[in-house]
Amino acid sequence: MKTVVIRNFKRASDEAITTLRAAGTATVHEAMGRIGLMKPYMRPIYQGAAATGSAVTVLAQPGDNWMIHVGIEQCRPGDIMVVAVTADNTDGMFGELLGTSMQSRGAGGLVIDAGCRDVGPLKEMGFPVWSRAVSAKGTVKATLGNVNMPVVCAGVTVYAGDVVVADDDGVVIVPQAEADAVARAAQQRLEKESRSRERLKSGELSLDINSMRPQLERLGLRYVDTLEEAVRNDASR
Amino acid sequence: MKTVVIRNFKRASDEAITTLRAAGTATVHEAMGRIGLMKPYMRPIYQGAAATGSAVTVLAQPGDNWMIHVGIEQCRPGDIMVVAVTADNTDGMFGELLGTSMQSRGAGGLVIDAGCRDVGPLKEMGFPVWSRAVSAKGTVKATLGNVNMPVVCAGVTVYAGDVVVADDDGVVIVPQAEADAVARAAQQRLEKESRSRERLKSGELSLDINSMRPQLERLGLRYVDTLEEAVRNDASR
Amino acid sequence: MKTVVIRNFKRASDEAITTLRAAGTATVHEAMGRIGLMKPYMRPIYQGAAATGSAVTVLAQPGDNWMIHVGIEQCRPGDIMVVAVTADNTDGMFGELLGTSMQSRGAGGLVIDAGCRDVGPLKEMGFPVWSRAVSAKGTVKATLGNVNMPVVCAGVTVYAGDVVVADDDGVVIVPQAEADAVARAAQQRLEKESRSRERLKSGELSLDINSMRPQLERLGLRYVDTLEEAVRNDASR
Amino acid sequence: MKTVVIRNFKRASDEAITTLRAAGTATVHEAMGRIGLMKPYMRPIYQGAAATGSAVTVLAQPGDNWMIHVGIEQCRPGDIMVVAVTADNTDGMFGELLGTSMQSRGAGGLVIDAGCRDVGPLKEMGFPVWSRAVSAKGTVKATLGNVNMPVVCAGVTVYAGDVVVADDDGVVIVPQAEADAVARAAQQRLEKESRSRERLKSGELSLDINSMRPQLERLGLRYVDTLEEAVRNDASR
Amino acid sequence: MKTVVIRNFKRASDEAITTLRAAGTATVHEAMGRIGLMKPYMRPIYQGAAATGSAVTVLAQPGDNWMIHVGIEQCRPGDIMVVAVTADNTDGMFGELLGTSMQSRGAGGLVIDAGCRDVGPLKEMGFPVWSRAVSAKGTVKATLGNVNMPVVCAGVTVYAGDVVVADDDGVVIVPQAEADAVARAAQQRLEKESRSRERLKSGELSLDINSMRPQLERLGLRYVDTLEEAVRNDASR
Amino acid sequence: MKTVVIRNFKRASDEAITTLRAAGTATVHEAMGRIGLMKPYMRPIYQGAAATGSAVTVLAQPGDNWMIHVGIEQCRPGDIMVVAVTADNTDGMFGELLGTSMQSRGAGGLVIDAGCRDVGPLKEMGFPVWSRAVSAKGTVKATLGNVNMPVVCAGVTVYAGDVVVADDDGVVIVPQAEADAVARAAQQRLEKESRSRERLKSGELSLDINSMRPQLERLGLRYVDTLEEAVRNDASR
Repeated sequence: MKTVVIRNFKRASDEAITTLRAAGTATVHEAMGRIGLMKPYMRPIYQGAAATGSAVTVLAQPGDNWMIHVGIEQCRPGDIMVVAVTADNTDGMFGELLGTSMQSRGAGGLVIDAGCRDVGPLKEMGFPVWSRAVSAKGTVKATLGNVNMPVVCAGVTVYAGDVVVADDDGVVIVPQAEADAVARAAQQRLEKESRSRERLKSGELSLDINSMRPQLERLGLRYVDTLEEAVRNDASR
Repeated sequence: MKTVVIRNFKRASDEAITTLRAAGTATVHEAMGRIGLMKPYMRPIYQGAAATGSAVTVLAQPGDNWMIHVGIEQCRPGDIMVVAVTADNTDGMFGELLGTSMQSRGAGGLVIDAGCRDVGPLKEMGFPVWSRAVSAKGTVKATLGNVNMPVVCAGVTVYAGDVVVADDDGVVIVPQAEADAVARAAQQRLEKESRSRERLKSGELSLDINSMRPQLERLGLRYVDTLEEAVRNDASR
Repeated sequence: MKTVVIRNFKRASDEAITTLRAAGTATVHEAMGRIGLMKPYMRPIYQGAAATGSAVTVLAQPGDNWMIHVGIEQCRPGDIMVVAVTADNTDGMFGELLGTSMQSRGAGGLVIDAGCRDVGPLKEMGFPVWSRAVSAKGTVKATLGNVNMPVVCAGVTVYAGDVVVADDDGVVIVPQAEADAVARAAQQRLEKESRSRERLKSGELSLDINSMRPQLERLGLRYVDTLEEAVRNDASR
Repeated sequence: MKTVVIRNFKRASDEAITTLRAAGTATVHEAMGRIGLMKPYMRPIYQGAAATGSAVTVLAQPGDNWMIHVGIEQCRPGDIMVVAVTADNTDGMFGELLGTSMQSRGAGGLVIDAGCRDVGPLKEMGFPVWSRAVSAKGTVKATLGNVNMPVVCAGVTVYAGDVVVADDDGVVIVPQAEADAVARAAQQRLEKESRSRERLKSGELSLDINSMRPQLERLGLRYVDTLEEAVRNDASR
Repeated sequence: MKTVVIRNFKRASDEAITTLRAAGTATVHEAMGRIGLMKPYMRPIYQGAAATGSAVTVLAQPGDNWMIHVGIEQCRPGDIMVVAVTADNTDGMFGELLGTSMQSRGAGGLVIDAGCRDVGPLKEMGFPVWSRAVSAKGTVKATLGNVNMPVVCAGVTVYAGDVVVADDDGVVIVPQAEADAVARAAQQRLEKESRSRERLKSGELSLDINSMRPQLERLGLRYVDTLEEAVRNDASR
Repeated sequence: MKTVVIRNFKRASDEAITTLRAAGTATVHEAMGRIGLMKPYMRPIYQGAAATGSAVTVLAQPGDNWMIHVGIEQCRPGDIMVVAVTADNTDGMFGELLGTSMQSRGAGGLVIDAGCRDVGPLKEMGFPVWSRAVSAKGTVKATLGNVNMPVVCAGVTVYAGDVVVADDDGVVIVPQAEADAVARAAQQRLEKESRSRERLKSGELSLDINSMRPQLERLGLRYVDTLEEAVRNDASR
């Protein structure tokens, strides 16, 4: 494993980040063609947490948070640290002191494929964290990893500078080079959803709004009046 | 698999539903003889969620929410949709737009053995959902399932028209034909618990209220003064 | 298995308990040398739950809460019941009635390696519980266990009288004989953390506060400007 | 819960059972329209285990194997016992002595949504078991359940008399009333697969055998020469 | 955490160990009153693995196998190393080289609450291992733990010198001081089981051998002829 | 998501592949600096399975094996297909017919982050598969994915042409550009391990072979004679 810290990388435009933030994870994920989403075990440490920014990536060893200390120096205001670990681990590698340090430097949040502790104080500070576990388990500072190399975090490849979009629904990663295009697509999607929402609110059905009935019928969906009618004349239960 | 939508089924009486709602999942489950409870991985998407109503059942394919769109049309005011999936899946098959549609038609909530997204907006709307996961993972509309056929959801068989009782403690299913009897039993249980609660509040012990001491002694429970006394004269640690 | 109830055991001093409460799980766990923490699947049933007190231990059978009834009688004001089960189980072995009973006797909370129900009412009552699951599944009263014998709960050995420290980050157990020493160490740690917090708030880095740079360099951490520079001249991706 | 033992139920024909046995779980599951399969955590206790027969159903309490003792009396030669449990449990509810009893009465195997012990002796005896766990954890005989009532086992509803088909790939349940029809469909499927197998063995591709190429092209599948060509002109990574 | 190696401890008698080995985990666990069993996720790395001997205990850090190297020196012929880890971990902390070292010193096997690698070569060597996972993940040698202090391994407290009984059904721990008594009880149990086995083989039912019928009837078990009869006159499905 | 099939990519040299095959996963993983290993839930469908070759990558939808059919055409003799899925899924996406097709074209095996069926016939054919589950659950052919684009499979990024090394210990991925260097490092490691093995076999300790004692002492490891001595003079249990 390379034990390096990379100081420079390209970030997405502020406009793209602002638009992606407004869209939220579910819409951004759809706008990308339904990819880029971390595994659903990644949960915010408090309801209502939300953060969008450029990724500073960290690869750490299980039970060893040393590289997080190293990575904080590489964060610019608004950045979000994404911590991958070389093996499944739930230790509390991040807590209130590191959160204080990140917040004082303007960082926007943390995504960690391991545990987080001090969730009460972090909530009070308003420093959002997405983690696979909450755990007070302490860690050592013994083995090197790296910073800003590409990592796989919760099933997704993340490069430094990719845009992290995180909220109550999870975490989605937008490659830096695609951020503008995805932001545009997300914006269009939001507008389309807004029109659908009005029609649904008025009681219309998506079956009609999206003209699904003919295709459902073509594939063989039958409407019957009763369970008895449904099971009559055939062997299915 | 039968690809049908059943339009008619029998619902429980409003009285039974009202009583079951007031009793809550734990009491209803006890009143049924401790059956009918879905697996505990089914959790509300926000604390304080509660819903009781008649089941509209949906069988969907993993990662495919088409049949939810079909099922909404079959919901009457107060109904609760129960979505089973043909294989374990955590994709976000339900979100705010579908919730808007269900709410506009008066449906009371959703129980889904898969993932839910848009949990922030759904909480704000006050549309309660019980799911096995929160996930922004998008879904397709490609394969048929069925609506209002019997399903197995989170370990429990559910027929359309069965009563769904759901709150912070989970989800319990009351067969439609048993709803009145279970409601009566739950009511009695509530009254008995109310009496016990008063005695417990005053400091009495359930050991005495329920006369457990003789049976405990008969089975061999011994009281000793110290750990040393407990382990003396025998080999146990 | 010994089917006994032990009536007497030594508790830690009030001073130690007070100090440990103020320190919280993460600090206490660190102060003990990073041991004593229960597995992270032990979660509070509501955010903000916190309790510290002397352990009354219970060993119960899966799906059988009889020994909890027996154990309540052994609780003094401030005590926390710690329930271990002889096999993995998520049934709702504890609920509002038992909580009412414990609260009326002054007990401070419950830690159970099984399920808890009535989480809404328990939250309202302010009776904190840490459990591995929330479940309405009812239980029987059929088989004996024991009270105040040593148990293994969520991976940690607990003796009656050990100090239980529990909050949003989990549950840590301090052996009774070590409580004073650990309280002192925790106090010192809090003071040290307080000094660090101020420096971190002002923007200093832990890399500098803790003089980590020389050791990182000695172990081979290199700083480079770009990803291209990092991967140049070697085979790593 | 009803505490009854039902003595009589309808079994499928020997012909259907014989054909279903020869087809195996994967083919039978396909022949039913891809339903009826238990969750994949149900695994044989030894490689090569295989059994097909009529279900004798048992509903037991977690950690209590009493109803298995009761159920054995209801087994006829060739029957397979299907044990559901009222809550998730991995205790070793079945072992070599019960296996000896079942084998002496001609029963064909056991499917249990809990744990199994004595896996070495059971393998030696050639008595096949499918379980969710292997565990030596002993059980009590304290609480009633029922025999030959419908149960939900590992996600599937099973009625007494349904056909159980189990092998290395898992367990599938064929409703008794559908057994003949499913057997016929499975037979046809085997013949079709046999023809496909020959063509695949000779090096033909399923793309061609099943004429998939036009539909793939219609949906937008593009063939390109290199990764560079694939990512050129668009933002995707 | 204490960073010590304890050189001396009391072992159980050879006679006890020999008897316990012959009895196997399930019988020994029953003979102890159904305690002492590790969680069922502890599995042998090959079918047929079996080992019984005195425990040499090791407490290691996740992803760090240094203390196993230290512990080997403390093993006498026949001893079994029991490795606990301070946090859940599946890294491959043990492999063929360490197995060679243990085997050359006469050790009888390894029980590790983490991962094992080189399972092919270890099987070929006949060195039995019980682990929670198989994983090639390499480990470091950076942080101290201890040897022969009491540990909690897979849910069970283990002292150096306790007897480890391990086979296809899992791992059970017999406290050193109880080994003789448990061995006698296990021996008696084997003899009783042997008599039961003969009767069961001849077709007798445990219902009759153990006279269960009267108690079943007293608790309310009813025999009926058909499902229709079972559900008639009441609301249950 | 890009719906493309990439026809050309660079493979590693035959020499590198041959050397990596001989080294096995554990040694290769170490030789790479302890990276590149898939999560340990990836298990061979039979003991003794082993395969090493160039990756043909497939990205599929959950419950949809269409792209595997497409990917087979892109396999050359010796290649190993690596299938990633867009969401966690255990359906049996691969079975004996697809195995027959791959084998007839000379492919060396399959790695799939989903389920596999027909494990009996596949074992008999000698076609090795590593999967996260065994399941007979059938799949559809409805939605596109892609072939030979980079994928994340079981936590590891895989490019077409990377070398897959798989055996009883799991699956490790060697980037194509690093294959020669890693093969050399693995070879050296094998030789070093061979020398260690001889010394360990003769009874030498790794403590001495690798001169660990001074560093252990420096870090504070103490040797004491008894547990009493270890706990004397301090508060630790």
